[in-house]
Amino acid sequence: MLVNDNFRQLPVSYLFSEVARKISVYKEENPGKEIIRMDIGDVTRPLFPCVIKAMHEGVDELSKATTFHGYGPEQGYLFLRDAIASHDYQSRGIDISASDIFVSDGAKSDLGNLGDIYSKECKVAVMNPAYPVYVDDNVIDGRAGSLCAGRWSNLVYLDCNPENHFMPNLPQEHVDVIFLCFPNNPTGESITRDELQKWVDYARDNDSLIIYDSAYESFVRNPDSVRSIYELDGAKKVAIEVRSYSKTAGFTGLRCGYTVVPRELKGKYADGSDVSLNTLWNRRQTTKFNGASYIAQKGAAAIYTPEGISSVKAATDYYLGNAAIIKQAFIQAGYKAFGGEDSPYVWVYAGEGVDSWGLFDQLLRVCGFSTTPGSGFGTKGDGYVRLTGFNSRENTEKAMLALLNREKD
Amino acid sequence: MLVNDNFRQLPVSYLFSEVARKISVYKEENPGKEIIRMDIGDVTRPLFPCVIKAMHEGVDELSKATTFHGYGPEQGYLFLRDAIASHDYQSRGIDISASDIFVSDGAKSDLGNLGDIYSKECKVAVMNPAYPVYVDDNVIDGRAGSLCAGRWSNLVYLDCNPENHFMPNLPQEHVDVIFLCFPNNPTGESITRDELQKWVDYARDNDSLIIYDSAYESFVRNPDSVRSIYELDGAKKVAIEVRSYSKTAGFTGLRCGYTVVPRELKGKYADGSDVSLNTLWNRRQTTKFNGASYIAQKGAAAIYTPEGISSVKAATDYYLGNAAIIKQAFIQAGYKAFGGEDSPYVWVYAGEGVDSWGLFDQLLRVCGFSTTPGSGFGTKGDGYVRLTGFNSRENTEKAMLALLNREKD
Repeated sequence: MLVNDNFRQLPVSYLFSEVARKISVYKEENPGKEIIRMDIGDVTRPLFPCVIKAMHEGVDELSKATTFHGYGPEQGYLFLRDAIASHDYQSRGIDISASDIFVSDGAKSDLGNLGDIYSKECKVAVMNPAYPVYVDDNVIDGRAGSLCAGRWSNLVYLDCNPENHFMPNLPQEHVDVIFLCFPNNPTGESITRDELQKWVDYARDNDSLIIYDSAYESFVRNPDSVRSIYELDGAKKVAIEVRSYSKTAGFTGLRCGYTVVPRELKGKYADGSDVSLNTLWNRRQTTKFNGASYIAQKGAAAIYTPEGISSVKAATDYYLGNAAIIKQAFIQAGYKAFGGEDSPYVWVYAGEGVDSWGLFDQLLRVCGFSTTPGSGFGTKGDGYVRLTGFNSRENTEKAMLALLNREKD
Repeated sequence: MLVNDNFRQLPVSYLFSEVARKISVYKEENPGKEIIRMDIGDVTRPLFPCVIKAMHEGVDELSKATTFHGYGPEQGYLFLRDAIASHDYQSRGIDISASDIFVSDGAKSDLGNLGDIYSKECKVAVMNPAYPVYVDDNVIDGRAGSLCAGRWSNLVYLDCNPENHFMPNLPQEHVDVIFLCFPNNPTGESITRDELQKWVDYARDNDSLIIYDSAYESFVRNPDSVRSIYELDGAKKVAIEVRSYSKTAGFTGLRCGYTVVPRELKGKYADGSDVSLNTLWNRRQTTKFNGASYIAQKGAAAIYTPEGISSVKAATDYYLGNAAIIKQAFIQAGYKAFGGEDSPYVWVYAGEGVDSWGLFDQLLRVCGFSTTPGSGFGTKGDGYVRLTGFNSRENTEKAMLALLNREKD
């Protein structure tokens, strides 16, 4: 039986296992020495009391025949989709309604599964550096071509560097599908409306689809930074927006997010006729998915209560506070540091002639904390490390104190 | 932007909406008349107390920083995978371990997503009638060819009828991937070890992969009927087994199941070299999935406690009791009825010259209960209707009494 040959080219991801291995070797060599994990992209704070209460209620409903729920709608319960439409969009003046919204088990699933609805022939553009699954999803689907010196021959790379303030330039060639992520993972940089409008206009002029990953939108504080791509004129005709409660409300283990596919958004069949992407995604989800867990959806709806809204603010403020401490400390220590203002991520430049693993090793050995080497996010990530605010304040301060008090080599 | 052109051919599924429409029209014409839903393939009984307790505990763990869980393993927590391996396999003498098992959000997702790992060139065989997503998944992936008179040109149909006791004959031509489902949806028939061994042998001789849907295994009571395909000699080298807690323990709304991809199972790359399907599925799942909800996994683990095991037995006994009442009543009423012994489904033959919708209409109008027209499951389902034991005993008895007391036309 033949397998999907595209897997053959997909390198096994060594990044996180290599990070874990290096930490473990270091610990063996230095027994008793504590390592603070500043590399982990996972939340650490417990769920909000209102979410806990809603989930207990949900569990109790399932315990009685009169209130039991079996299969839910594949698109998600209307109580949640209405809350999303009202709070995340309509209250901010954006005309998105429940029928544009598909609740899912998280952004990672949707980002991969969206590959079912656009053609295998599509030319795909990704930011460099970027969250690795955009690339891997397209390798599995056969759109990436072959790998040479860390780049895939059929992908278009949108390079991000200090010179362009980590805001990529528009592609020079035609692309069909563009993955954008703001606030960005890994650079931690957010995008302004003026800057993102250029991409919406490009997509409109080039008949392209933007897959907009806004998993970190709840960290945005700057009033000029974009939270939803639908704030931009014409975006409903060119963009799918993928969101997650993972970082917003600590749902990484609960699995719930949503994707917006506006009814205005059209693609083309091979004969040139128009087709609604909302219809295609609905067909894909009703065929290959059976809805997110009822308990997770109950919990997610509680995020939109007044208590939930203030809890999201408090939790994201806490992580942003950590990110600010990290950024400030690295700058004070003489590094160039980016992001960390509308984002839990801080992106640190290792300095002339030092690569990602070099800085990773220094920080681990000299300062006792771990980071994520930027080279794991693409060729343009080399020379950087990523740090995250997903830690306790105490550990963050301790790690940064170690950085500031380090003895330089 | 070009879309996946395969969607163009995929007919919108009218089956369930047409059933709902006919019931609604009938209700309008006959106000006050009650319709008993004997068509619904969804559980009705509440979750077991031990599952409820485990989920409350899981929710409480997420409420405190010291016991909080963030991202879990994409393959599922080891506490659940070990329980599965031990209770569902090793205790029955089958050598399956945690590393063969991938916990998921349900069988429907896995059945569709497995299409990512086998080649788009694979020749696929499906039973006729069958659960419609096997066909639709392969249409989306481009393996089905074109639709003509209800059959897809590139699929091989394994016809099931009373002559072969709904046990399909081996295909006459070579096929690469075979979808088998026992106890079967919709016919309700289970398979014996001798019968299934023929398929395992065929797959071994033809280098084929069997995707074995055993979502209804917990309903098996006959000691000769197969619960797991790995009971058969050599099956670990040819079969993936897909399972779900939906019908076993009422998890349709919670979303948890698992898929077994034994490490012995190999496929081939285009150049003829071997590759482990366990490795490919692991790569697929770690790239496009982030694990099932922690709360659902906590609940699933409780199914394997002594209380959980007896609750599964009691719940499935209850539904099987309903199925037996249905089957008995239809036979007494002069119909040919199948399945319903190792399965919650009863498959009723409409009789010479009557099609599925004809019997559906008669039963709705004369007896006041709804069924699922068999034609929705494939061309060989026409002339049948499916009834389910997923109802209260009271409603089941009431509906069958109406059948037995009906005035014949």
